[in-house]
This record gives sequence, C-alpha cells and structure tokens, in this order.
Amino acid sequence: MADSKPLCSRDGDPMAAEALLRDVFGIIVDEVIRKGTSASEKVCEWKEPEELKQLLDLELRNQGEASEQILARCRAVIRYSVKTCHPRFFNQLFSGWDPHALAGRIVTESLNTSQYTYEIAPVFVLMEEEVLKKLRALVGWSSGDGVFCPGGSISNMYAVNLARYQRYPDCKQRGLRALPPLALFTSKECHYSIKKGAAFLGLGTDSVRIVKTDERPSQLLSSACLLQGAVPFLVSATSGTTVLGAFDPLEAIADVCQRHGLWLHVDAAWGGSVLLSQTHRHLLDGIQRADSVAWNPHKLLTAGLQCSALLLRDTSNLLRRCHGSQASYLFQQDKFYDVALDTGDKVVQCGRRVDCLKLWLMWKAQGGQGLERRVDQAFALAWYLVEELKKREGFELVMEPEFVNVCFWFVPPSLRGRQKCPDYSERLAKVAPVLKERMVKAGSMMIGYQPHGTRGNFFRMVVANPALTRADMDFLLNELERLGQDL
Amino acid sequence: MADSKPLCSRDGDPMAAEALLRDVFGIIVDEVIRKGTSASEKVCEWKEPEELKQLLDLELRNQGEASEQILARCRAVIRYSVKTCHPRFFNQLFSGWDPHALAGRIVTESLNTSQYTYEIAPVFVLMEEEVLKKLRALVGWSSGDGVFCPGGSISNMYAVNLARYQRYPDCKQRGLRALPPLALFTSKECHYSIKKGAAFLGLGTDSVRIVKTDERPSQLLSSACLLQGAVPFLVSATSGTTVLGAFDPLEAIADVCQRHGLWLHVDAAWGGSVLLSQTHRHLLDGIQRADSVAWNPHKLLTAGLQCSALLLRDTSNLLRRCHGSQASYLFQQDKFYDVALDTGDKVVQCGRRVDCLKLWLMWKAQGGQGLERRVDQAFALAWYLVEELKKREGFELVMEPEFVNVCFWFVPPSLRGRQKCPDYSERLAKVAPVLKERMVKAGSMMIGYQPHGTRGNFFRMVVANPALTRADMDFLLNELERLGQDL
Repeated sequence: MADSKPLCSRDGDPMAAEALLRDVFGIIVDEVIRKGTSASEKVCEWKEPEELKQLLDLELRNQGEASEQILARCRAVIRYSVKTCHPRFFNQLFSGWDPHALAGRIVTESLNTSQYTYEIAPVFVLMEEEVLKKLRALVGWSSGDGVFCPGGSISNMYAVNLARYQRYPDCKQRGLRALPPLALFTSKECHYSIKKGAAFLGLGTDSVRIVKTDERPSQLLSSACLLQGAVPFLVSATSGTTVLGAFDPLEAIADVCQRHGLWLHVDAAWGGSVLLSQTHRHLLDGIQRADSVAWNPHKLLTAGLQCSALLLRDTSNLLRRCHGSQASYLFQQDKFYDVALDTGDKVVQCGRRVDCLKLWLMWKAQGGQGLERRVDQAFALAWYLVEELKKREGFELVMEPEFVNVCFWFVPPSLRGRQKCPDYSERLAKVAPVLKERMVKAGSMMIGYQPHGTRGNFFRMVVANPALTRADMDFLLNELERLGQDL
Repeated sequence: MADSKPLCSRDGDPMAAEALLRDVFGIIVDEVIRKGTSASEKVCEWKEPEELKQLLDLELRNQGEASEQILARCRAVIRYSVKTCHPRFFNQLFSGWDPHALAGRIVTESLNTSQYTYEIAPVFVLMEEEVLKKLRALVGWSSGDGVFCPGGSISNMYAVNLARYQRYPDCKQRGLRALPPLALFTSKECHYSIKKGAAFLGLGTDSVRIVKTDERPSQLLSSACLLQGAVPFLVSATSGTTVLGAFDPLEAIADVCQRHGLWLHVDAAWGGSVLLSQTHRHLLDGIQRADSVAWNPHKLLTAGLQCSALLLRDTSNLLRRCHGSQASYLFQQDKFYDVALDTGDKVVQCGRRVDCLKLWLMWKAQGGQGLERRVDQAFALAWYLVEELKKREGFELVMEPEFVNVCFWFVPPSLRGRQKCPDYSERLAKVAPVLKERMVKAGSMMIGYQPHGTRGNFFRMVVANPALTRADMDFLLNELERLGQDL
C-alpha cells in the first residue's frame, strides 16, 4: 500500500537531519581535527578486540536508535580509531591531512554520484580529465589517457591488462589460453600487488619474473625465460619502493624495454609525487618513456584515501577498447551530447567513486608551488632525522635513504657493542615488535617495522605528514630511547 | 634544508582550516541538503561541456588561491553537479540520501584510514565483520566470510576468481594456461560486469555462455559447451536485473548447480536489499544455497557510493588463500595481537576504503525495521505508479514489474493508435532521447532510457529514493505528458 507521505522515520524530518549532521560535524572538528592532530593527545587508544567489541556494541538490531545515541556512537568510533592525521602517526605511506582535500571529500560524499557519464557527473568527468592531464604533464606527456582507480594495486593490474591486450587483442574475447605463455619482469622490491595482480588476471604468479636489484637492467630478460617459451611483454619498475623508498633506474630500464618492445609500467604509487619537486624529480628521470604510470596522490600529497591515478601515454583509446563493453542502458549512443564524455566504459568497474575533486580542490588552494614545498620539506625533514639519528648511540641506519622512508634499527642498551654475538641479529629482530606494542599501548606514536630480505625487523619511519617539524623527529628518537631503555 | 616550523602555507593555520571546513559544511547544508533535495529546485543545471569548462576554470596552476576563492569553487562544483538526492532524480539504481549514512561517510573521510589491519583500523575491522555477518544472516547463513569491494563489478569478479581457485588452486601460481578451458553460465539479462570480469580475469568473454532466460534452468549446461571441451565451473544468477528488475529462479538454478557441482554466484547487487522485507524476500528464495552473493547497499538502501558487499558461504578461509600474499611489511606475523584480525590480505587491493561505517550507522539509526519499511514503501510506490500509468493514454508498460524498476514507453500524441504503421517502433524509439534532452535542459527531472533486446528505447523508472511520495509519481507522468505533447 502506497503512502502519500514521505517515509515516516526519524530521517523524514529535514530539520532533524540537518541538526544531526551539524552535531556530527561539530564532533569531527573537536575530536578528529583538534584533538586528533594535537601532539598532546594520544595517536591511538588501544583496546583488545574483545573489549573493543563490547565498547562499540556493534550488533545491528531491528529497532532504530535516537539521535543522541547515534551521536554517542560517532564519538566512540572516533575515540577508538587511530588518528592517522596525528603528528605521531608514522605508520603508513599516508599520514596527516589537508583541509581543502577534506573539504573536497565531504563535498564528494554529499553529492554522491558515480563517475561514469557526463549525464550524471558533468563536473567530475571534465575535472577528472583536467587533473589527469596535469599529472601526465608532470610525467612529461602532452597527451595520453588515464583514469582514477580504487588504489594502486588495481592501477597496477590495469597496466598489466592493457599491456597484454595491446599485444594480443584476442585475449579479451578468447582469453589467455589463446595466447602463448607470458612473462612480466619486476624487481624483488616491487609492491606485492604485482604478484596479486598476476594471479587475479589469470597469468599466475609464476609469470612474474623477479630481477635481482643488483643485476644490471640489461640482464633483465634472462635467456632462461626465453628458453621456457614465455613471451616477455611488460616490465614493472618501481619509483619509491614500499619499505626502502628506492627508485629504479628508469632510463636504463626504458632502454631495455625499447630494445625488446616491452611495455614499461612504472609503479610510482609512492614516489610519483616527487615529480612536483624541481629539486628531487631527477629520481624519476626517464619516467616519460614509460607506457603507464601508477601514482597515488593520497600518499605523500595527503589527498585522502583513495586517490590513485593510472596514467597512460596511449592516444589510441586503448583503455576503452580493452575494457569497454558498451552497456546499452548506460552508454546509449543516441544521447544528445558527445558520448565520448561518458568515460565509464574505460574501466572494469561500473559505478566508480569520484576521486578527482579532493585533489583538484587541494591543488587549487595550495598551487603547484605549495605542493612542491611539501615534498621538499618532507625530504628535508627526512635528512634531518638521518643526521640526528647518526648522532645518537643505539640507532643504526639500514641504508642512506633516497626518499622519505628512513629505515633503521633501534639497538637497545643490552645489545650495544654485541654485533659479533651469534644471536645478535635474532635478538635485535625481536626489539621492534616489543617497542611497537609499548608505543601503541601508550598511544605515544605509531611507526611500522618489518623484516626485509635477510635483514631482521627494523623500523620504517615515513615522513609524509605535512605538519611535521624537527621537534617531531626529535620526539621519535627520544620516545624510542624511552620505550627501549630497559631492553 | 629542514625547517623547524610546520609547512608555511594557508593550511598551516588550524583556525583557518576549521573556518574553511565550517564554511564548506554550511554550503553543503544550504546547497546540497536543502536546495538539492527540494522539488521546487532543479535536479540539474545543464551546461554544454565547453561552457562548463569555462565556468569551472578547471586548470591547475602553480599559484594557490585564497579561501574565498576555494569556497566559490565549492559552490560552483555543487551548482553544476547533478543532485542525485533530489526527489526527481530517477536516473540510476541509487538516489536519495540518508543523513546517518552521510554522517558515517563524513566521519569515514575525516578518519582517513585503510581497512587492512587491526593496527590502524581497529574499529572498522570489527565493524566490517559485524556488518557482513548481518548481511549473511539475511541471506540465510550463520557462518561464512566476505568483504566490501569497490563496487558490484569487482564483487562479481571476486566470485569468479574464487570459484576457479576453489576448483583449481594451481591457477594462482601457474595461471589459466595450466587449466582446462573453463566456462561460466549466466543469462542475457546479467549485468555487463560478468563479461568485463571474464576478460579482465583472463578467461575471455567467450568463456561466458549466455543462457536464454526463457530456457529452463536445467538446460543451462548445453551439450554444445561440453562438446567444446570447456569445463563449466560457475553459474551467475541475477536477483534484480539492471533494466527490468527481474529475479532469476534461484531454487531451480541451485538444483542444477548442485547436480553438476558448480559454484552458484548470485549477483544481487540491486535486488539484495529485498532480503530485508518479510513481504518481498520470497523473490530471492533459494539464495541461501548460493556460494557467493554480491549485494550493494548503496543502491536501494542509500548507504552512499560505494558500499558493495561480497558475501561467501565458505568457512575454509578461501578468500585469504586465494588472494593472500603475506606482505611482510604489512602483515607481520610477530605482532602483539591476533593477526587473523588483519583482514587486508583477503583482497586484491592493498589500501582499501572503509565502506562499513556508513551502513552500520544508518542501520543503528533506522533499525532493520526502518530499512524494511523503506523497501516495502519502494515496492508500494512502484505499484502505485504502474496503476496510474495504466489509467493514462500514451503510456505503455514494457512488462508488469517484479521489483521497483517500472519500464514503459511514452507514446506521444502523433503515434497513438498507429501501432500497425511499419515505422511505429522506429519512431517510438526516438521519443525517449528527445524527452530526455528536454527534461535535462529544463532541469525538471532525470530518468533513464535504453533499448533492450528487440525493444526500442523505453524509460526505466527506478523507485529508490526513500523520500518519494505518490505526488512524485504523478509528477513524473504529468511531466512526460507536458514535455512530449507536441511530438
């Protein structure tokens, strides 16, 4: 039975809806933006999972709750969430915040549209194209194509799919069985999404051939691969590796790709933002020779999760040919405007979030200048940290950093001077997990650690938050000394 | 050179940042929430692409802009964007809004974390599990697994990838070439993402075998397929097709799958929300026999883009086995808490947006009851529309709807009574595009149209916005009559 009035529920009242949103906005300003970015507050409020479940009362019931309860729930969600904008959150490749980017994200959420047709996303179809054009210009391309993807892993997958389609267009219809066995090349330092992607795309992880980073790029195509009958089709180089922040030598790799007719993909998800810096962009010299580039402005540029661009040098409409399926209910050809603007058929998603506005608005506010200053400052602070770290006993660099990842061991008092003991490495590797537990339970800071190759656990400090100062670097070192003084 | 102060830019000032956000929030309340949902305002403000580019001044420059300019940009972005929450936006399978869901989305954006580890997303790891458990319970499963994906297309791809991995675990490492040729079955009415997914996953679109919807499900596995040597491994049924809103007979299809040992995937991206309604959930009878279900609460439940769950009956950790790669920098095994909580290795993404909070908060506020009422009201309003449409001259139903998609032709005065003319269908097919242009340029409403099989363009009205009333249905019919009176 149809009701002639709108839904009779709490949210049917526009005034109540506005009041709720106003209150939630106030909570966000107080708890996330003020307290959540204040060094005098905790970066996290650790709870054991079972206790947290009780505190949150997660169960979804039949009966709805009043606004006051909903507001209390928002407070609890924020209270027990990690404050990734906090100046002591060093844990991931993203941290900190930009008010313009956040404004763009809130506007995006309120407009709630999908990035597939000019019909329902006129502003964002044009804006995405403009933002991608700017990113391409920084790569060094005056033309090309691209799209925002839900994360760098999927951008990398796109590159692999496009490369195989370009070489074997039959693949789309007939599948991999109609093709010779394929091989793609990358380094041991590549992001794990390359292997995940190879599995997902049906190539299998065996198709990923690992080139040792100390091998010369010209040895990239080993005769072993050719003997096995696999056809090399793509090289994935990395600009800014996840742990060490290393940059592959793109010019040399591009030479090899050119010689052998291979698609060159550059996974610059992390390092791409360095292109903004006149001082440091030489780290990516040669990137303009790539066929595709993955670049995540949600990392160093604090655009907000997720903002992940796949950029292409291609001007032959490869994206649309590779992924298009011309769904007639969405991409009607008899529309009254130029249907080339309906860019949704370039992707394997149907509905797709708007990821351009946050970056666009931040860029408008900061200008390329402001963003460049951020990148330069991150480098400068990372170098400051390295210098300070060298002055202190008990800190040992894993390597001189190329980028803003500063990797080091904290050697606690009981292990200092005992490098020659047979169990030194084993004992040192146990230090980081203990300190991590202590810092998280204290809520004083968060920093990641990992083993790497033959190296035992070490810390990876990431200088990404634009609000960081030298004082935060000093704090990091002091706090590790404090937390580890009894070890 | 390191600077001892935070970034010297406009956003370095916390008061200015707060003021900007407060102003943007005010603009959102005025322009999106009040005017954007008011029937007396336009649903869209059509501009030709070239004019819109001028109006938006999209170019990204080196110099930043002051706050007042940024606020003006927010206003322009909103002004020229389509108002998908407007009561006259009937264009997609999503429309309307829920203030609690929007509150959840804004909190999500402000917290800006990634859904991969308990370490940095403790609240959301637990919350996602609880929300998925609730959705599984509605499917009829007391255990299982699942994950939120960036849209239904990727949920469907996951299902296909999981099905092939379950049957041939070798695939992950050795790829599709190590497997026999595979075939999956679906109907002509399936979403286009099934074919897109088959291409992306390396199976090729040829591996998708289309079963005619008027065939009996038992004829699903044609001998032709078996003769070609392809191994059937999955059937994808649809609950709520995109255009017609039809529901496949799941019990009968499940019988076939059971008999032949096939994975049954149900693409309930659109229809899944009907499970909330005691009155209508019979449309999905048999769904509990599926192996996987895709369900998008961002559609009928207005959770906000994107909220797309892939639900699995599996309890053997298939997701993690199929997609996991144990990246040591993220999923360290020596953490101080139960690393089973680090759910990020279940997916092919690395960073993944938090998509659970918006649905959780809305559910807490509305209760299952409130959401059920919404679903029932949408059905009731769709039936009201059908009855009204039948009373009027010039409207012709494509078929009696099963769901809230009401598909119909508007037959303009000049074509009435001329069904027997040889060019009738051709002329009728040209009506919808003309009316679409007129309504968009007037900004009076937006409704989709498409051809379908042998049928020429017809309108697809979608009753999804929970704020709709009978008056909006009457408006739709009146407006089409008004716009088309001279045709």
